[in-house]
Amino acid sequence: MPVNFHIPDTRDIHPVKGVQIGIASAGIKKPGKKDITVFRFTPGTQVAGVFTTNRFCAAPVQICKKRLAVRQNIEALLINTGNANAGTGEQGYQDALTTSAALAQALAIHDDQVLPFSTGVILEPLPVDKILPAIPQAVSHLADNEWFNAAHSIMTTDTVPKIASKQLQLGGQTVTITGISKGAGMIRPNMATMLGFMATDAAIEAEVLQKITTEIANKSFNRITVDGDTSTNDSFIIAATGQSGVAPAVDSEDFKTLYAALTDIAKELAQKIIRDAEGATKFITVQIEQAKTSEEALKIAYAIAHSPLVKTAFFASDPNLGRILAAIGYAGVTDLDTSQLELYLGDVLVAKDGGRNPAYREEQGQAVMNEAEILVRVVLHRGAITETVYTCDFSHDYVSINADYRS
Amino acid sequence: MPVNFHIPDTRDIHPVKGVQIGIASAGIKKPGKKDITVFRFTPGTQVAGVFTTNRFCAAPVQICKKRLAVRQNIEALLINTGNANAGTGEQGYQDALTTSAALAQALAIHDDQVLPFSTGVILEPLPVDKILPAIPQAVSHLADNEWFNAAHSIMTTDTVPKIASKQLQLGGQTVTITGISKGAGMIRPNMATMLGFMATDAAIEAEVLQKITTEIANKSFNRITVDGDTSTNDSFIIAATGQSGVAPAVDSEDFKTLYAALTDIAKELAQKIIRDAEGATKFITVQIEQAKTSEEALKIAYAIAHSPLVKTAFFASDPNLGRILAAIGYAGVTDLDTSQLELYLGDVLVAKDGGRNPAYREEQGQAVMNEAEILVRVVLHRGAITETVYTCDFSHDYVSINADYRS
Repeated sequence: MPVNFHIPDTRDIHPVKGVQIGIASAGIKKPGKKDITVFRFTPGTQVAGVFTTNRFCAAPVQICKKRLAVRQNIEALLINTGNANAGTGEQGYQDALTTSAALAQALAIHDDQVLPFSTGVILEPLPVDKILPAIPQAVSHLADNEWFNAAHSIMTTDTVPKIASKQLQLGGQTVTITGISKGAGMIRPNMATMLGFMATDAAIEAEVLQKITTEIANKSFNRITVDGDTSTNDSFIIAATGQSGVAPAVDSEDFKTLYAALTDIAKELAQKIIRDAEGATKFITVQIEQAKTSEEALKIAYAIAHSPLVKTAFFASDPNLGRILAAIGYAGVTDLDTSQLELYLGDVLVAKDGGRNPAYREEQGQAVMNEAEILVRVVLHRGAITETVYTCDFSHDYVSINADYRS
Repeated sequence: MPVNFHIPDTRDIHPVKGVQIGIASAGIKKPGKKDITVFRFTPGTQVAGVFTTNRFCAAPVQICKKRLAVRQNIEALLINTGNANAGTGEQGYQDALTTSAALAQALAIHDDQVLPFSTGVILEPLPVDKILPAIPQAVSHLADNEWFNAAHSIMTTDTVPKIASKQLQLGGQTVTITGISKGAGMIRPNMATMLGFMATDAAIEAEVLQKITTEIANKSFNRITVDGDTSTNDSFIIAATGQSGVAPAVDSEDFKTLYAALTDIAKELAQKIIRDAEGATKFITVQIEQAKTSEEALKIAYAIAHSPLVKTAFFASDPNLGRILAAIGYAGVTDLDTSQLELYLGDVLVAKDGGRNPAYREEQGQAVMNEAEILVRVVLHRGAITETVYTCDFSHDYVSINADYRS
């Protein structure tokens, strides 16, 4: 069961002017399941993306990077679930060209104006024959308010659709931001996560949009981990259609407000991935404070967030907190003075001076461990940097889900 | 159930001249369980050790490092299970001094001639009151052929004792090597593992012994991983008593033979930890060939060996081998050309040219996956280095064991 997961009322999901979405079923994994999603952007829309750093990056990721690099006017996205088109070599690349060309033809745009995305099993050929007939169907269903259905149609092992939406007033006009994401396992994004799509009807210049997309990814999707496995297909896209007529100048107050709202939506979408992570029963925030550098803070945060021993202790609600100390100790910060740091679980000071806080009582740790949302804080007293990573516990269901994934 | 685990016949466990072992029960975790082990070395024995790099290293590890650094004549080891004496601050340090002083007194040697070792739960005070009365009991039981019982008495979540023994002829004389190890979880040794003790009655000079102990650790205990969690207490010790009368010169053929035999025993003890790893149902060898550097080979080997997705697929005997490609891709070798490598499962060529080998059939992968011992080979075509890492799968029992560890 997802942890404190909020599925918004469909009335609170605001369509974005200049964005249409169409959905169809190609029967890639299961007959009848919606598995093809098409985004159609109005001409003039700016699109920016960040992608996985995995060297075995999927064919569609390679094509996205190329097409965004030459600053084509991207006007459509083609997303399939059920097959990742990764580890598929040259044939996979050709297959992604073929399917995105089919969408371009259906929309009467140039091939290079389509970005393709795939998610699902790796190392299996893309079922092009199934996908091609579904594309005109998806196009025939293009409509303004299909965000909720799109969040559904991009799910794989996700148990709930992930969607967030917000409206704000800028210069007396309404600007909308809406986004969807998916992912529950193979989650340790290292640019962005598989898959996040956001759109706003504010106008944002191409270069600025690319810059803030990267920055926003680093505050949201690049700060979550389920299992430390960086996917071959991670992709995060922001599209700015400009159809609200609002075009705030960079460095204006309105731009800052827009930036903060975009960041909020991205964080919400990223955190929703953790709340619905495979087998998760707890939502865990790991916050490292007073670090010398962002790098050392993240080393320690991820050592804690990836430790199977820490994660199974959370699953058991067992305050076996020495495991967190062990993870801090092996994180690779070679000059760390362990007598100078403090470990807090929620508000409870667990360890200081290199050992257990004499005032700490097991019942205090147990009370925090019993919660579904847990904050782990490590105060290093080495500098002024804070970094926060979001993760979940490690349960029997994680093993079951991933042992049975293909069956 | 341990995977293809060989428990030798007690007749094949050879005592080492110059080494006596005594065991007692302090009732640290469970009344009646043997949890105190004393090693007594004959004067003149050379002792070398390597220890965890965890910054939260346990108090006994700190003391071992100090005492070995000043080249005292180490004549005794004191090992307790049930409590790690790690994350225990200044009090933990004092407690390790107190207990090792008690052993020194019982043996009429200097405090600094004792090396202390602890294993068990972290962040809880060492129960000194329970340990002190057990020390004279262990000393009163000192005997030549207690290796098998010692292997039992150092177990924590281990299900079987880990022991290896060998005799070889050097210069017409018999030399014995015997060792024990323990560990089943929190295993990703980064100097050595918690705990490995070996002894030989060959004579090896102090400096040479320290050098080869480090080298041997790098070929054995430093090449195994269960969960990627580097323990606070990892320690690996080789003692050379010289009592066989055999003292081969460095660089002689006899020395090479002795070195190879010591390495074999260390590898066997290290692999036994994986065979009995928490919840393990498979023994997996990850071999990276034709790498440019040892560092890049190990990055890829550990990315595969630590991936929860790869490990759950092994548990399910599911040839979902795209997960291995994903791990290779995110291992951090940033200039890796994925079209140039080959992935083999056993003898089966699974992937090449950046995708699935066209001749590969699922039944072939399934046949290898059904085995209890599996070889994963990645041939990089970048250089001449080979590195091998040993690991296990990730099962429901791992979660159960670590969720319930303290209850």
